[in-house]
Amino acid sequence: MGMATGRTAYRGDDALAGLLSSAGIRITVEDLRGLVAGVNAAPPGQDPDGWMILLGADPATLPDTLRAQLRALKDDMAAGDGVGGGGPDPVGRIAALRAELDRRGLAGFVVPRADEHQGEYLPARAERLAWLTGFTGSAGVAVVLRDAGAIFVDGRYTLQVRQQLPAGLLEYRHLVDEPHVDWIAANLPAGGRLGYDPWLHTVGWVERARQAAAKAGGELVPVTDNPVDAIWGDQPSAPIAPVVPHDVRFAGRGAEDKMRDVAAAIARDGVAAAVLNQPDSIAWLLNIRGTDVPHTPLPLSFAVLHADAHVDLFVDRRKLVPGLESHLGNRVSLRDPAGLGDALDGLGREGRKVLVDPASATAWTVERLSAAGAQVVRGTDPCVLPKARKNEVELEGTRAAHRRDAVAMARFLAWLAREAPSGRIGEIGAAERLHAFRSAGERFRGDSFVTISGAGPNGAVVHYHVTPATERRIEPGTLYLIDSGGQYDDGTTDVTRTVAVGQPTPDMRDRFTRVLKGHIALATVRFPRGTTGSQLDVLARQYLWQAGLDFDHGTGHGVGSYLGVHEGPQRISKVPNAVALEPGMILSNEPGYYETGAYGIRIENLIAVEPCAELPGAGRPMLSFETLTLVPIDLALVEPGLMTAGEIAWLNAYHARVREAVLPDLDREAADWLTAATAPIVA
Amino acid sequence: MGMATGRTAYRGDDALAGLLSSAGIRITVEDLRGLVAGVNAAPPGQDPDGWMILLGADPATLPDTLRAQLRALKDDMAAGDGVGGGGPDPVGRIAALRAELDRRGLAGFVVPRADEHQGEYLPARAERLAWLTGFTGSAGVAVVLRDAGAIFVDGRYTLQVRQQLPAGLLEYRHLVDEPHVDWIAANLPAGGRLGYDPWLHTVGWVERARQAAAKAGGELVPVTDNPVDAIWGDQPSAPIAPVVPHDVRFAGRGAEDKMRDVAAAIARDGVAAAVLNQPDSIAWLLNIRGTDVPHTPLPLSFAVLHADAHVDLFVDRRKLVPGLESHLGNRVSLRDPAGLGDALDGLGREGRKVLVDPASATAWTVERLSAAGAQVVRGTDPCVLPKARKNEVELEGTRAAHRRDAVAMARFLAWLAREAPSGRIGEIGAAERLHAFRSAGERFRGDSFVTISGAGPNGAVVHYHVTPATERRIEPGTLYLIDSGGQYDDGTTDVTRTVAVGQPTPDMRDRFTRVLKGHIALATVRFPRGTTGSQLDVLARQYLWQAGLDFDHGTGHGVGSYLGVHEGPQRISKVPNAVALEPGMILSNEPGYYETGAYGIRIENLIAVEPCAELPGAGRPMLSFETLTLVPIDLALVEPGLMTAGEIAWLNAYHARVREAVLPDLDREAADWLTAATAPIVA
Repeated sequence: MGMATGRTAYRGDDALAGLLSSAGIRITVEDLRGLVAGVNAAPPGQDPDGWMILLGADPATLPDTLRAQLRALKDDMAAGDGVGGGGPDPVGRIAALRAELDRRGLAGFVVPRADEHQGEYLPARAERLAWLTGFTGSAGVAVVLRDAGAIFVDGRYTLQVRQQLPAGLLEYRHLVDEPHVDWIAANLPAGGRLGYDPWLHTVGWVERARQAAAKAGGELVPVTDNPVDAIWGDQPSAPIAPVVPHDVRFAGRGAEDKMRDVAAAIARDGVAAAVLNQPDSIAWLLNIRGTDVPHTPLPLSFAVLHADAHVDLFVDRRKLVPGLESHLGNRVSLRDPAGLGDALDGLGREGRKVLVDPASATAWTVERLSAAGAQVVRGTDPCVLPKARKNEVELEGTRAAHRRDAVAMARFLAWLAREAPSGRIGEIGAAERLHAFRSAGERFRGDSFVTISGAGPNGAVVHYHVTPATERRIEPGTLYLIDSGGQYDDGTTDVTRTVAVGQPTPDMRDRFTRVLKGHIALATVRFPRGTTGSQLDVLARQYLWQAGLDFDHGTGHGVGSYLGVHEGPQRISKVPNAVALEPGMILSNEPGYYETGAYGIRIENLIAVEPCAELPGAGRPMLSFETLTLVPIDLALVEPGLMTAGEIAWLNAYHARVREAVLPDLDREAADWLTAATAPIVA
Repeated sequence: MGMATGRTAYRGDDALAGLLSSAGIRITVEDLRGLVAGVNAAPPGQDPDGWMILLGADPATLPDTLRAQLRALKDDMAAGDGVGGGGPDPVGRIAALRAELDRRGLAGFVVPRADEHQGEYLPARAERLAWLTGFTGSAGVAVVLRDAGAIFVDGRYTLQVRQQLPAGLLEYRHLVDEPHVDWIAANLPAGGRLGYDPWLHTVGWVERARQAAAKAGGELVPVTDNPVDAIWGDQPSAPIAPVVPHDVRFAGRGAEDKMRDVAAAIARDGVAAAVLNQPDSIAWLLNIRGTDVPHTPLPLSFAVLHADAHVDLFVDRRKLVPGLESHLGNRVSLRDPAGLGDALDGLGREGRKVLVDPASATAWTVERLSAAGAQVVRGTDPCVLPKARKNEVELEGTRAAHRRDAVAMARFLAWLAREAPSGRIGEIGAAERLHAFRSAGERFRGDSFVTISGAGPNGAVVHYHVTPATERRIEPGTLYLIDSGGQYDDGTTDVTRTVAVGQPTPDMRDRFTRVLKGHIALATVRFPRGTTGSQLDVLARQYLWQAGLDFDHGTGHGVGSYLGVHEGPQRISKVPNAVALEPGMILSNEPGYYETGAYGIRIENLIAVEPCAELPGAGRPMLSFETLTLVPIDLALVEPGLMTAGEIAWLNAYHARVREAVLPDLDREAADWLTAATAPIVA
């Protein structure tokens, strides 16, 4: 955890109470400890003192002694917290869980890696799977029965799970190929009651798991409090990070206008209210941001949007910075999160049509609404599409963010070009260096995801996350792959570059050039309105396919505007997707190639859908992509003989754009590197 | 209707009875008249005397006088038959239907263009929509209420329906954009009972229409006999065309083996029986063919496949040629079609799991099974996928059929090149000439669909069917588009060529070349197993899209082996399709471009999926396409400057294949034309 310098010892609650009182801050030390527990359960953010705004005053105006004691209290409290902290090992924890299940008369319990929002990034408190089993991967589920148990992870984590779990504790299963509901059907004892936490699963899951339990002659039963929480003595609090306004000069459209538009859309469908379960939908709708979870700037909350354009926002009021209530305006009513159930009951009592998104709504929500008498309508979260269609201000913002990000990337690549040939740079050091370059830029709020920094064979691990145990040095004769991104007030970036250190082999150049040709095919395609990302996916793969090669991930995901680096509903993928690409949508364009045990290649730019300029003789209006990312592509890996004249022209024009945008902000050495790195090539 | 030459007058039933008796044929004249009524209700086929085999003897061995009298009886009976024959006009027929509905207490009735098999080609008896309204398009539905009514047709038929229906009789609506169930919801009077024939609709339709009727406060009710049939005095009989064996030297696999395989597949899914509603599935499974409907060589029938690999075939026994029963073997039990209901009741009484395909099964089937107590399992017809994967013998057969078809096409194109510049050739004459060239070849059984022969602006009408009223001459300075195909014992063909008459414009060359580049991109793609046609579709469109152009139809449909020229489940289309392309599947590759009012372009070859030869360094096994069609592509329309070296090489290699396959079978003049038409081009 980042720490302010000049640390002083904590002098006790009484002393702190005195300092608070002198500064005119009305909060008891007990309440303050509650607040700080929440602050410690949130990611640190760029400014370690930023949380102090929640005391009601600008941290910069606080007396130094008070600020130092607040820091000291926070650090003291943090020492006892956290997923990894204290307590028994997985063997002991699973034994404790089994004892707890016995007390409750449960034959077993399902522990997904999930929070109440089905989010990609989880608050510390929701990392139950990691705490219980030691497995820290980003996807997985454990089913713990009295005499058996299994953990389900996907292909990315087959090795890791074996390293992190003591052998023999749980069976290892494949998350996709061996569905855990099938395992339940085969292993739950007849008559056994299998517990689940209805806040952590969707209705679709409950339906499948209920059938599986019934097949085994058992029963699936919801628990009212999670048994893992009952045995997790030092479980972190719910996170408390400042909820701040997202200024309309970045958002481009006021929250009241958005509420009115979305409310009108649900009213047209005859729906009285929509339950919003996705914090990024709520953040977009209300123009607010936060840091409750890593990498995605969102406050955890629930909301109910009524067809009259009024919103009930269920959020811990302690999180709101001064002035946020007036920013939200009088169409937003603040509610205690504990009151969500009563609010759903109210909708139910009136027998109203309530929209929930089955992809994200908790089983708890749907069951509560149904039990209360509401007509539950299943449909897409009504914020998802308008959020995906970025407005002109958001697009201008993301262009500016990409220019700043490009400066950081150019400085990083110039540094790498100078240092890497020594063979002494490690994957962790490189990622830290890039983070430092980004941090030096304006409006930077943090990395948009955990940087993938893969040298040599580690580059072939698609979702590689470097640890000291796996770290490799970047060595001559290898490729180095770095996939990273930034969160900025005005946009979210995500870029991957693959760099040759020393002389690449002909095979590396062949593969890289095929990936590049696919990247260019997607970057330059024109397509009619109504086209989906699934339809375009092949363009990025065709040149690899011609050589009997492919890559086993999607070609492009949606990207938010200072929000999630992965957002729907659009994507470019082999998987069918019915969502048409629309102007303003941002996606990644990231074909790759992975030679297991040797090297990985990926070339990723962000692209925005835009209307095509009028074409002479065109029969219909077309769309195309604007490439947002402005970072050089390593020419040492390009084999011009494999490229068409049009592809070479694209590459040269792209590099000219990069130079124009970035060169003015570089120092002499980086500028020289960039000028050489973006020199035009010929066939 | 085709007619044998040397017609003699019919001399009366007594005379015919005597002739039959002398020839040792035991059939009463009454039974014979029933048989001939069915024969007349089937398409004529290539041999007008072919039906006489159904009398139990080789027609060639019948005495000439008997044969002549049989022909005379058939022609006499035909004179009073048919869709167009006698009776009142649409105004009178719809009035008669309304009177019939009154008698039955129905507020209205739904008349789809459909038969009991949801087939593409209908027997004459099922052309109720055409008989009632005069509209002869290939898709449509009418809803006739007492005081209102509407006919729903798609964009192909907006003009035609107005020409064929008297004005003011029915409202004109768009089949897709204005769903007829919505019209029902808006127009059915409250309390009104809307009738439908459960043999002519799928369960999915019934569910939607029932909701629509309920929305109007009315009710959807099945009828036990179709009210259109009740007022259609001269409705044709059910067709009777000879059901013949499809020899294993063409089918490649015996019917017993197929039955065993498919039965094993349904048994694995825990299903006791599958109801087969699709005559082409049955024809494939049992290795039989017929001519009950135009263009697709199938006998109309139903079947039940049991998990023990036994089949109940519900077919009119009069249709079977001598020896067919032994060809079918003792695993196939012949049943009277009227006994289908009892058989379904039997499956129901045993409470068994019965598979039906909701895409094709009649509502009648599903309701009968459910009412009888069967567990109805909805799933894909189990013959569909194995039928689509052609075996080596079928592929060898289709290659041979394509070579013969190519000779006919080359002779036709040579003739066209000589004659068209005169400006005197008409669309009908050209289509007839092509049919004559095909008929001169071996194993030809008829056109695989109605030839599209479109000159100039008629070429831009995607599903153009020439009539004397619409026919144009093929004139210099225009394009001529011909889309046609043949049914051969060993395969089914489908080919489109676009030919420039005189000097094409630069625009025509530009568009044609873009279509050709798309065609080549699809013909040459390599792709991993698991890839669907939807994923590949963009390859055929990309060069048109670059110019702001597109075509509004699919890129490729599945094709049968001496079966339907349109068969599923695979297709290449913008529409999502989850079916992976597998080795042996045959598809069309037919991108196009249509300039309304000016010209149409389409380049269509059939292609077969095949495993790729091993590629050096390839990481995974790949698939590719073998092009089956061997017909020159008009070089006058190719702009080499728009093509890559690879595309030009493909075109030259393709033309070399065409020459090699076809040249030996051409006369001098056609050979000279072909040699010139397939000369290599340079960039």
